[in-house]
Amino acid sequence: MREKLDRLQRQLDFILELDKLKTVLRQTSLVDGSRQETSSDHSWHIATMALLLLEHADEEVDLLRVLKMLLVHDVVEIDAGDTFCYDTQAVQSQRQREEEAAQRLFGLLPDDQRDELEALWEEFEQRASPEARFAGALDRFQAVLLNHATGGGSWRLHGISVEQVTERNQPIGEGSTLLWNHVRKLLDDAVERRLLVP
Amino acid sequence: MREKLDRLQRQLDFILELDKLKTVLRQTSLVDGSRQETSSDHSWHIATMALLLLEHADEEVDLLRVLKMLLVHDVVEIDAGDTFCYDTQAVQSQRQREEEAAQRLFGLLPDDQRDELEALWEEFEQRASPEARFAGALDRFQAVLLNHATGGGSWRLHGISVEQVTERNQPIGEGSTLLWNHVRKLLDDAVERRLLVP
Repeated sequence: MREKLDRLQRQLDFILELDKLKTVLRQTSLVDGSRQETSSDHSWHIATMALLLLEHADEEVDLLRVLKMLLVHDVVEIDAGDTFCYDTQAVQSQRQREEEAAQRLFGLLPDDQRDELEALWEEFEQRASPEARFAGALDRFQAVLLNHATGGGSWRLHGISVEQVTERNQPIGEGSTLLWNHVRKLLDDAVERRLLVP
Repeated sequence: MREKLDRLQRQLDFILELDKLKTVLRQTSLVDGSRQETSSDHSWHIATMALLLLEHADEEVDLLRVLKMLLVHDVVEIDAGDTFCYDTQAVQSQRQREEEAAQRLFGLLPDDQRDELEALWEEFEQRASPEARFAGALDRFQAVLLNHATGGGSWRLHGISVEQVTERNQPIGEGSTLLWNHVRKLLDDAVERRLLVP
């Protein structure tokens, strides 16, 4: 019983620490434009999208593992912040900042859970499995959907070109050909409406 | 292919509609007190808690079904709003408002997915399975954690008594005896520190 309560305490320490992800702001805005979305908003949104879009994964995937990955993939941002993917300087230091964050944050948990979450995060980062490729596709697909739905959103704000967006989002095609084809249609539309620099 | 694209379009209509859950405010505040949490924050938090606290469920549960339930359990609030559980008048009309919301929102999806999500939501609401009882326990447990961590939070704000909180949270004990025992410790502490009216 003592051991069980110790485990619970470590789990709760981590769970209270997780609360901070609700204060990490992303570059994308809500569809209604009222504010930037947080990494917690985003994590919920893409996990729910995984349930709904599973049938469009190119490879057979284990949905439970996809969900686990999506729920924890941004936890490192509690320490490392959200890195804007088109900020080349920030991207250079991203990996080191996030590794240190993973060590501290997952280290709050009992060892077995620390190991499981670290491995899931690493698998996601490396796109090292069908689950990681599908999860990674959803992560990027959601940002495209929101930027398109908000009249260009962070693309317009930062003068990002369609070539940059296309290159950044290539990994969507590694997870789902159908979603990637949809992205290309959205990007064509965005160029036509001058939401994206051609 | 035509049919596949039609399905995708319905799924995306629902996914963009889901974005609105990020604007639904709950009574609980973030641990740092900076703002109220949203229903999307909350849904992400409890889904991630489910991964971590699974071992404390009293009955054997299928984690995938628990996660599905937690991810969609608050979607009806997009139309019906968050109902404060101690507001007896609002609680009276809650069921009808939420049923109408479920019909409209899940109705955006292809029929098979509409049926699956409606059934999951109903199962959660009725606490009709081990998964629903564990999911329901986490839903309430998280609010207790946050209210305790924020010096009484919405309990203090609305002058809620320890009897009201105890009664409201009884269902935690239906999902996990260990978590319920922890809640009782937190409530004793809250009374001692006068965060809750005895």
